[in-house]
Amino acid sequence: MVKQADQIKEIVREIIARKQEKGGVKSLYFVGCGGSYGALIPAKIFMEKECTTIRSALISSNEFVHNTPEDFGENSIICLSCHKGNTPETIAAAKLGKEKGAAVIVLTWLSESEIIPCADYVVQYEFDASPDHLEGKIDYAGEKTLCAVMIAAEVVNQTEGYANYDDLQEGLTLITDVIRRARAQVGERALAFAEEYKDDSFIYTMGSGAGYGAAYMESICIFMEMQWIHSGCIHTGEFFHGPFEVTDHSSPFVIQIGEGSTRALDERALAFLRTYAKRVEVLDAKELGLSVIKASVVDYFNHSLFNNVYPIYNHALANARRHPLATRRYMWKVPY
Amino acid sequence: MVKQADQIKEIVREIIARKQEKGGVKSLYFVGCGGSYGALIPAKIFMEKECTTIRSALISSNEFVHNTPEDFGENSIICLSCHKGNTPETIAAAKLGKEKGAAVIVLTWLSESEIIPCADYVVQYEFDASPDHLEGKIDYAGEKTLCAVMIAAEVVNQTEGYANYDDLQEGLTLITDVIRRARAQVGERALAFAEEYKDDSFIYTMGSGAGYGAAYMESICIFMEMQWIHSGCIHTGEFFHGPFEVTDHSSPFVIQIGEGSTRALDERALAFLRTYAKRVEVLDAKELGLSVIKASVVDYFNHSLFNNVYPIYNHALANARRHPLATRRYMWKVPY
Repeated sequence: MVKQADQIKEIVREIIARKQEKGGVKSLYFVGCGGSYGALIPAKIFMEKECTTIRSALISSNEFVHNTPEDFGENSIICLSCHKGNTPETIAAAKLGKEKGAAVIVLTWLSESEIIPCADYVVQYEFDASPDHLEGKIDYAGEKTLCAVMIAAEVVNQTEGYANYDDLQEGLTLITDVIRRARAQVGERALAFAEEYKDDSFIYTMGSGAGYGAAYMESICIFMEMQWIHSGCIHTGEFFHGPFEVTDHSSPFVIQIGEGSTRALDERALAFLRTYAKRVEVLDAKELGLSVIKASVVDYFNHSLFNNVYPIYNHALANARRHPLATRRYMWKVPY
Repeated sequence: MVKQADQIKEIVREIIARKQEKGGVKSLYFVGCGGSYGALIPAKIFMEKECTTIRSALISSNEFVHNTPEDFGENSIICLSCHKGNTPETIAAAKLGKEKGAAVIVLTWLSESEIIPCADYVVQYEFDASPDHLEGKIDYAGEKTLCAVMIAAEVVNQTEGYANYDDLQEGLTLITDVIRRARAQVGERALAFAEEYKDDSFIYTMGSGAGYGAAYMESICIFMEMQWIHSGCIHTGEFFHGPFEVTDHSSPFVIQIGEGSTRALDERALAFLRTYAKRVEVLDAKELGLSVIKASVVDYFNHSLFNNVYPIYNHALANARRHPLATRRYMWKVPY
């Protein structure tokens, strides 16, 4: 049993009960910035796909604050992700939630921080705080991305019912072993990747569906933020409608081949890259063992798998480039 | 009066009347690929912001087909954008709409094409088909992006009411003059831009809110597809949560400063770039005259303005690089 699962079920139960007299829960907003935005993508896709009654959106924190949805208020839940609880834009969004009478759930890592008093409910998620996230001893089902999926699943299940609820719970018990094995499996190829790509000035990432967030995070948080490598994140379904024209023998691509509904999109993009590109790193969820999770819910686990396999690559790349992942020139250093 | 406005009002009226006996309209999906995906972003943002009852999402065509929302059916409207009516993924999504009993609206340029028989309703939009879109004689309010916004606004207005409906209609009568003046205004600076950036191998675009789609389209359809320049599109609200670490004196950025709710996000990113970057091209909607449109609705016109000012830059860039915008190496040329 995931540590956070019971707590999340109870939080959602309480919110739904409290909102009953006000007309019920009508909207569920996911709000965060950067990596905390990307980590909410699986939950957003879950709501788009599985929910038939409640409005939902994923909005970057400062955009949410400046362009708040009209219906945001007493009938809303806002689920914010804020790693250390000190991101000003996300704190502002949480405060707005309080003011408007929304139920404010904060997903965070630390038990004490500036955002905590702005929350009605706090879920402390699992996080591998070891150097370069290499230790791998946590229960990955308790990470922020799956906590957000659990919130979405509880909201749907406790209002209109969610047919694959038990499959999802089963998936949560399986994902940690899948990730641990996959991380061991890519050790050699991560070293080769680092050697091959260490001098590149830009690298694309690619993905689709509920796994797209992991590609987005690798692009903006690792390549751009932590390695100062230029990058863009391409949706594999959008690839053939513009982006693919940049493909040549020198352009580097890291592509996720997801397991589940949108795998066909990823495979099609890969087939093209195999023909017209020469420098392609493939992370294939099927080959990495994700198929032990039931097809009905496997989509929602791609992100966790990819996002936790990347650290093996990132550590190797940072070593090969002699550019430690913790190096920053602006973040937390200059006013912005 | 925009040519398409009456037709769209009538289409939405008919759909709402027909769906009444089935329980009403419960979801509105916007579906397209590439430029036709980007052009739907203002309508998506409109639904997220202004609508309080109907579920909505923007999904790339092939993802929609492979991971179709559970509720997609008799209570849904699907609004597809398909320029020449021959995009296989979008045709497949339209067919799925027919099968599932959704109301299928197709926004398209040509009166005859493969997608036409898959539509319940066809809206033929305005499009400047002159070389490099330089002629500028069309009514820009009738372009696909504002047709989609009109559909969203009609759906909201005819179901729950939309307080700024008249302001939006007024904006539609003003946008063409704003765009024409802005296109003339940037002539000189577009030539200077082309000279400065003609040898760059990558260029970032940046934007936010309902104008983000124009930045996305410039990145994937122009820089990547038509100029084979590497690119990524950065949301100005996300910039400080990772991407900004790539900023240096050599990295090129094209940044949209929108008019309306999310202008503060764009201005903040620009202030940073002014300090730490050296090569920044600014498109400022306020300076380009967009503020004649009322603040209540101006957000939804940023996309049209930027997307129609870019052609002046694109033509100059293509000339300076001796790489005509129509050049392709894969699109329509090889199997994919």
